[in-house]
Amino acid sequence: MGDASGVSRRSQVDPFIVMDVMERARALEEAGRSIIHMEVGQPGTAAPAAARAALVAAMEAGPLGYTVALGLPELRARIAQHYAEWYGVDLDPARVVVTSGASGGFLLAFTALFDAGQRVGLGLPGYPSYRHILTALSLEAVGIETRAEDRYQPRPEDLGDLDGLILASPGNPTGTMLDRDALAALAAACRERGAALISDEIYHGLDYGQRAVSALEVDDNATIVGSFSKYFSMTGWRIGWLVVPEAHIRTYERLAQNMFICAPHASQIAALAAMDATEELEANRAVYAENRRRMLAGLPRAGFDRIAPPDGAFYVYADVSELTDDSLAFAARILNEAGVAVTPGLDFDPARGARTLRFSYARATADIVEGLARLARFTGR
Amino acid sequence: MGDASGVSRRSQVDPFIVMDVMERARALEEAGRSIIHMEVGQPGTAAPAAARAALVAAMEAGPLGYTVALGLPELRARIAQHYAEWYGVDLDPARVVVTSGASGGFLLAFTALFDAGQRVGLGLPGYPSYRHILTALSLEAVGIETRAEDRYQPRPEDLGDLDGLILASPGNPTGTMLDRDALAALAAACRERGAALISDEIYHGLDYGQRAVSALEVDDNATIVGSFSKYFSMTGWRIGWLVVPEAHIRTYERLAQNMFICAPHASQIAALAAMDATEELEANRAVYAENRRRMLAGLPRAGFDRIAPPDGAFYVYADVSELTDDSLAFAARILNEAGVAVTPGLDFDPARGARTLRFSYARATADIVEGLARLARFTGR
Repeated sequence: MGDASGVSRRSQVDPFIVMDVMERARALEEAGRSIIHMEVGQPGTAAPAAARAALVAAMEAGPLGYTVALGLPELRARIAQHYAEWYGVDLDPARVVVTSGASGGFLLAFTALFDAGQRVGLGLPGYPSYRHILTALSLEAVGIETRAEDRYQPRPEDLGDLDGLILASPGNPTGTMLDRDALAALAAACRERGAALISDEIYHGLDYGQRAVSALEVDDNATIVGSFSKYFSMTGWRIGWLVVPEAHIRTYERLAQNMFICAPHASQIAALAAMDATEELEANRAVYAENRRRMLAGLPRAGFDRIAPPDGAFYVYADVSELTDDSLAFAARILNEAGVAVTPGLDFDPARGARTLRFSYARATADIVEGLARLARFTGR
Repeated sequence: MGDASGVSRRSQVDPFIVMDVMERARALEEAGRSIIHMEVGQPGTAAPAAARAALVAAMEAGPLGYTVALGLPELRARIAQHYAEWYGVDLDPARVVVTSGASGGFLLAFTALFDAGQRVGLGLPGYPSYRHILTALSLEAVGIETRAEDRYQPRPEDLGDLDGLILASPGNPTGTMLDRDALAALAAACRERGAALISDEIYHGLDYGQRAVSALEVDDNATIVGSFSKYFSMTGWRIGWLVVPEAHIRTYERLAQNMFICAPHASQIAALAAMDATEELEANRAVYAENRRRMLAGLPRAGFDRIAPPDGAFYVYADVSELTDDSLAFAARILNEAGVAVTPGLDFDPARGARTLRFSYARATADIVEGLARLARFTGR
């Protein structure tokens, strides 16, 4: 055991700052205040109606016992078909691993690919759990500070001596995407170094102009992380997938058997039906597109005009260094004075995030309109 | 990366042999053979009707987004109440961590308690995933060979230099339990060594005479692993819990946020309702009790008379060394010739399991009757 209290060193990871924001927002709401939620990173919509109906039917049909470790064969086949439909990639369903959310996918992939002490790179700003899961698995998270002029994505020459690299396109918190050439160049840089490439593609489907490119289109050896949480609107269902190199399938099967037994059966059934709920999902996306349009007009008007190109996802990442060098205190002021919950950049970039904020536009358009008006009043614009 | 194929050393864990048995059984059934399933370690019953109804209602009421990382407050409170009801233990709900199955609980607990390279003891025979999850987390699994005269549970003097110990009562594959004194003695031996005690109590509720004792009754610092899979009949829902020492709560909260975000929301709702479905769950238990009675009469009649005291769970572990020294081949013969699927002991005890079999009695009583008749014909009794 690591210290007097009996916990390990590797378990000592940072909390999510956004959780404190959410807790304060909840307390204010309980006290009667109206709060607009631009801090939360999840859809306000439910799982598609067809997904819920499929689960109701399955529960009536019989027990939902364990599935095989890699997932229901029909779901793996449907995910493979999805790669043909969205990316024009011919994918063997055997390479699809159904996981307990993207979180479960990261746990599996990092364990499958890396031994304790190995070094895995990730762009900053980035999703904080990359770093913390790596730490929890006794791996070394190597932060790569990215630049606004590179859409906050790493350059091939930024990669030092690494055993692996995590990319995210669209990224969280920025929403920026890597185009095909940039992705191919980074994949080549990984190959040169013998570094494993893990491509987080959980926001795919939520793009608003250019189509998001999958690393699978440029590198058959990349490990792809997918999710039903965002485009498919199923966060709480904890269901996602990996696409893994053919030579790794058996390794993942054994790891998944032992570490998870299987992904939640109910969620697998709902996810399968969700994949054909195109009309409902595209209606959700139209709301995000409208919200994004309003954010891109309204945020600059409210004084937040230094923003990353918001190619996808449902986030806008703003450089607020002209307004503050303490994003935590600044976010607290915005919450208290304007009644808008936003996320300080510190969750995503421990150093430079003191001068950035993340705004989420995942909720209803009426909330976006009201939130933007409050922000403009707050900044006096 | 660990080798030419690009996977890590720690990912190279053994497959479950029982999976191969299940696959061969499936193939035989597909070819038209009747197979009795005494290999599977899960109930044949569904989640309680009240649990399914609660989920249907929740899906109609609104989106099932992320819950807080430690689980729905009302579920944590209900689990704490369960410790009062079943064990007479007054438990603060803050110490309950809702997990993605017991599997998720093991991942969290092993990460929270141990750093890479530390040594964690476990009794052999035992649940194979203990060893394999430890390996995947870069920990050293230290097998402790137990004795039939000790009900296949470790003795305090068996513990060498360990950083942790996993106990299971009722155990898998044996079904044997530790009584209060034995559990207290092992807990004291752990305290003396500064070793963390992890008590796997996922089969609690499935006992048939003596009540299963929780390690929480004898050691407030033990880490308890609970599950909705077995007594609550919810395997595929991947929902369980931990009870952790008060000083560890914040560590688990941060780890759970990062490693899992939350346990499946739908499963949490169903689990909460399942806890009050006493009538249905006790009816399930009555079936297991009847199955067990028939197994204890029928297995010896069929020549399997060297069995561990089957205090709980739904397993009988038989020493078949008078019949074979190759349990894998022997189980294959039983499957092919008798049409009964059983699990070779090698999954649970890599050395001595060549001379043991595990029989599960989790299915319907009619199957047990037919299976026992087939086994008796097979052995010529």
